Amino acid sequence: MKKYDKLIINSIGRMVPTEVNGKPQIPFQGVGKHIPEGRKYAPEISSCSNFPSDGNKLVGSLKEALLKAGLKDGMTISTHHHFRNGDVISNQIFDIAAELGIKNLVWFPSASFECNACLIKYLENGTIHHIEGSMNGSLGSFTSEGKMAGMGVLRSHGGRYQAVQDGEVHIDIAVIAAPTADFFGNANGVDGPAACGSLGFALVDSEYADQVIVVTDHLVAFPCIPWQIQGNHVDLVVQVDQVGIPEKIVSGTTEITKSPDRLFLAELTARFCEVTGIIKDGFSFQSGAGGISLAVAEYFREIMIKRGIKARFARGGSNKYLVSMLEEGLVEYILDGQTFDLDGVRSMRENPNHVWTSPFTSYNYHGKGNFASLVDVVILGATEIDTNFNANVVTHSDGVLLHGIGGWQNCLFSKTVILTVPLFRDRIPVIRDEVTTICGPGELIDVVVTERGIAINPLRKDLIELTKNSGLPIVSITELKDLAEKICGKPALPAFTKEPVAVVKWVDGTILDTIWQLQE
Amino acid sequence: MKKYDKLIINSIGRMVPTEVNGKPQIPFQGVGKHIPEGRKYAPEISSCSNFPSDGNKLVGSLKEALLKAGLKDGMTISTHHHFRNGDVISNQIFDIAAELGIKNLVWFPSASFECNACLIKYLENGTIHHIEGSMNGSLGSFTSEGKMAGMGVLRSHGGRYQAVQDGEVHIDIAVIAAPTADFFGNANGVDGPAACGSLGFALVDSEYADQVIVVTDHLVAFPCIPWQIQGNHVDLVVQVDQVGIPEKIVSGTTEITKSPDRLFLAELTARFCEVTGIIKDGFSFQSGAGGISLAVAEYFREIMIKRGIKARFARGGSNKYLVSMLEEGLVEYILDGQTFDLDGVRSMRENPNHVWTSPFTSYNYHGKGNFASLVDVVILGATEIDTNFNANVVTHSDGVLLHGIGGWQNCLFSKTVILTVPLFRDRIPVIRDEVTTICGPGELIDVVVTERGIAINPLRKDLIELTKNSGLPIVSITELKDLAEKICGKPALPAFTKEPVAVVKWVDGTILDTIWQLQE
Repeated sequence: MKKYDKLIINSIGRMVPTEVNGKPQIPFQGVGKHIPEGRKYAPEISSCSNFPSDGNKLVGSLKEALLKAGLKDGMTISTHHHFRNGDVISNQIFDIAAELGIKNLVWFPSASFECNACLIKYLENGTIHHIEGSMNGSLGSFTSEGKMAGMGVLRSHGGRYQAVQDGEVHIDIAVIAAPTADFFGNANGVDGPAACGSLGFALVDSEYADQVIVVTDHLVAFPCIPWQIQGNHVDLVVQVDQVGIPEKIVSGTTEITKSPDRLFLAELTARFCEVTGIIKDGFSFQSGAGGISLAVAEYFREIMIKRGIKARFARGGSNKYLVSMLEEGLVEYILDGQTFDLDGVRSMRENPNHVWTSPFTSYNYHGKGNFASLVDVVILGATEIDTNFNANVVTHSDGVLLHGIGGWQNCLFSKTVILTVPLFRDRIPVIRDEVTTICGPGELIDVVVTERGIAINPLRKDLIELTKNSGLPIVSITELKDLAEKICGKPALPAFTKEPVAVVKWVDGTILDTIWQLQE
Repeated sequence: MKKYDKLIINSIGRMVPTEVNGKPQIPFQGVGKHIPEGRKYAPEISSCSNFPSDGNKLVGSLKEALLKAGLKDGMTISTHHHFRNGDVISNQIFDIAAELGIKNLVWFPSASFECNACLIKYLENGTIHHIEGSMNGSLGSFTSEGKMAGMGVLRSHGGRYQAVQDGEVHIDIAVIAAPTADFFGNANGVDGPAACGSLGFALVDSEYADQVIVVTDHLVAFPCIPWQIQGNHVDLVVQVDQVGIPEKIVSGTTEITKSPDRLFLAELTARFCEVTGIIKDGFSFQSGAGGISLAVAEYFREIMIKRGIKARFARGGSNKYLVSMLEEGLVEYILDGQTFDLDGVRSMRENPNHVWTSPFTSYNYHGKGNFASLVDVVILGATEIDTNFNANVVTHSDGVLLHGIGGWQNCLFSKTVILTVPLFRDRIPVIRDEVTTICGPGELIDVVVTERGIAINPLRKDLIELTKNSGLPIVSITELKDLAEKICGKPALPAFTKEPVAVVKWVDGTILDTIWQLQE
């Protein structure tokens, strides 16, 4: 299988391969320009007569389940990342595959974490051919160094749903680690010792994979309620001692920043939303899990209380701050894709207004609409932003692939997209002439908030008008770039070879940009 | 389009057509014998770029929605029956179609009620070609008289899901009347003036129809929570004055029988379940909505309280009796397909252990298992039962088609199936040599309880053993038949022509039996 085929320039001016891992690709055509043809992937029809009539799908071990599922060379194996850095099952799958001498697997996680760095040995010995999913941290560096046999494929959470739904990725075996399940395969993430909240990232796997294995350390009598994953999609169930490491499930990034600079950034962002009337009764918002984003939500809270405003809904990732807003009645609903702490898990378990969602409802661009575009304002980060408002979230300015896309691309369809970033990091400008990798086209990014001023995309004349005489430090994006370069100097460009190592997909499955191998 | 093509004998000895309404058919092969090949129906891929970015899918009227959805001759239009006899939208659809001069539509309801009898005029004038769904009451008589242009196709609730999933029925336009919805199309049945509980029967329509229209009289701000129907499947939303007639939504059959004979039947059934140990801690049961079934559940309650037993779950159709068992802690969960009264609706709205289900989870035979086979005991009715335990629920002994199948066929996969019936009705034997129409193969029917004795299927040696010396009036099915004939005389057979008017599908899509035109 060829890693890639000839390169062409796509509509946003980036060089992208026309074929990736043997599959033909469509270059990015512009936002909303690629209209899909054809039909969704059609799974094989099952029959109850091939399943145990008492509903008991338990088998003795993960190995037995993988063998029954027909594990063999070249298959695509999917997992989810709801356990974050406490994931143990993904690694076990490939331990088993390696032990069985199986080669050339494709790992299709919804995201990877540093706990998965041990899989590098299987990328090196051919057990895993390549990863389609976020290649973070050590896996990212490994990819950037050109060491992965196949091309990495980076997709947003919505893009992952889209790719499976549309048949671009065919999952042979989905392994769904579940904090609670019954023998029929109904499963949820809200109960059990390794409770992680939602299992929404695994929904598409359950719907479309040939074989679906649920693994749990907390087996309950049928019915497991709620059934975030429905047993009617599940082939096999395995009980194990531990399905995830609870203390590592909670992300380390879920504390509000204490940095005065970043608190100022957050306050500025909130003031912008207040001045422009974005914070109004019945509004909706999404703020990520990073320290700045959490601080933004806290400033939102202050403004809302002061002005007697309630939000109709907030999009999670949820955490204790958002949960307290729900419990105080400041937010009517949390529509939640993943919980970032135990307060989030508790709330999702107990509060019917804390609703678990999936990339299908929230992000899938190849649906009949999705929720992302209904959100009034979303506050996100970026590693780099260029003077056309294009932004990067996957590579650092040294060219190393170190992050996945997450829901970031999908959130760009919000009514107002604000990137809140420091002007520079470690004396490397964040605002620059050109980003290392385009993950989001500038036309979708409305506002860039830095500690040295706020740049509004010229397309958003309404916001420019609303902030006139507001006292807010409105500047042009070029002014921000010039200021960054005045302080840090013109940034050096990363030294790449001409070899692509990974591609960044857009939400519609087209190729937006390429990640290049680093020069040694 | 030919109504049917040549007739052959299927594996249970019934004459069935090989082609129905122009589509080739598979004759019934035996329980669990037909293994489907091929893939599920694959809907066309949508794109968010073809839907309003603010999520607002509202159009001005049902007519406008139908026109936007491309209503034209020959299309298949689906509706659900959660409003039961308070359905108003189904009739409006065909009023509009008739007004527009559209012909040869196929109506694909999840069930019909007497309130839909007004559609006969559209069957007569060619607006509607035929119905695939339950043809009850007046529509049943109309069909039996051979007046419908096409063949009727009767499916169980699970069979309806199966048929759509497998692409046997392609829905052009699904119209989902919803007690509550938002402008994006998220909808539920638990809130609003016409609250009916679940919308589960419409799930498959939302998933697979080309065009999905949600109609509501109770529009709420996004998000409509819970979203039993997900707006991501919905094309258009219509607001109307009234989506269903609340006082007719509650079924008239949801009071416990007061007849001493029938109470005796119910008590006998419950005693059978007690003696055989079916009622044990953690067991599960399903009892229908008829007067006898409700009485059975009440006797179950007495036994459970007396013996300190709790059920893990009960399958609904729910009603005030079942809800009180949930609230008293006698039942841990209700897994509910449809609520039969307002207590059921309230409980489903408020109690997280009152779970709305769909034919996908409960009944679809072409899934990876379903819940029906996990239920310990199900108590059902029948119009007729033969000495091979084959049973009928769709025709009366005079040959007239008067009922749909509902979930009856699907429930036959329960661990123990009990048919509780009077030995005769209006001096016509219920137990007889041969049933007018086979809806359920005898091998799946375990026990027949009548007021004159209990017959156990010889296949269930365990139950025969358990009831020895129990004091229960155990008899053979032949004894029951003989007794019925002794009292009522040998029943006259209905006078049919040789013309098929409808077919009864089995849960796997094969044809189990044929309904014949009545002689005039």
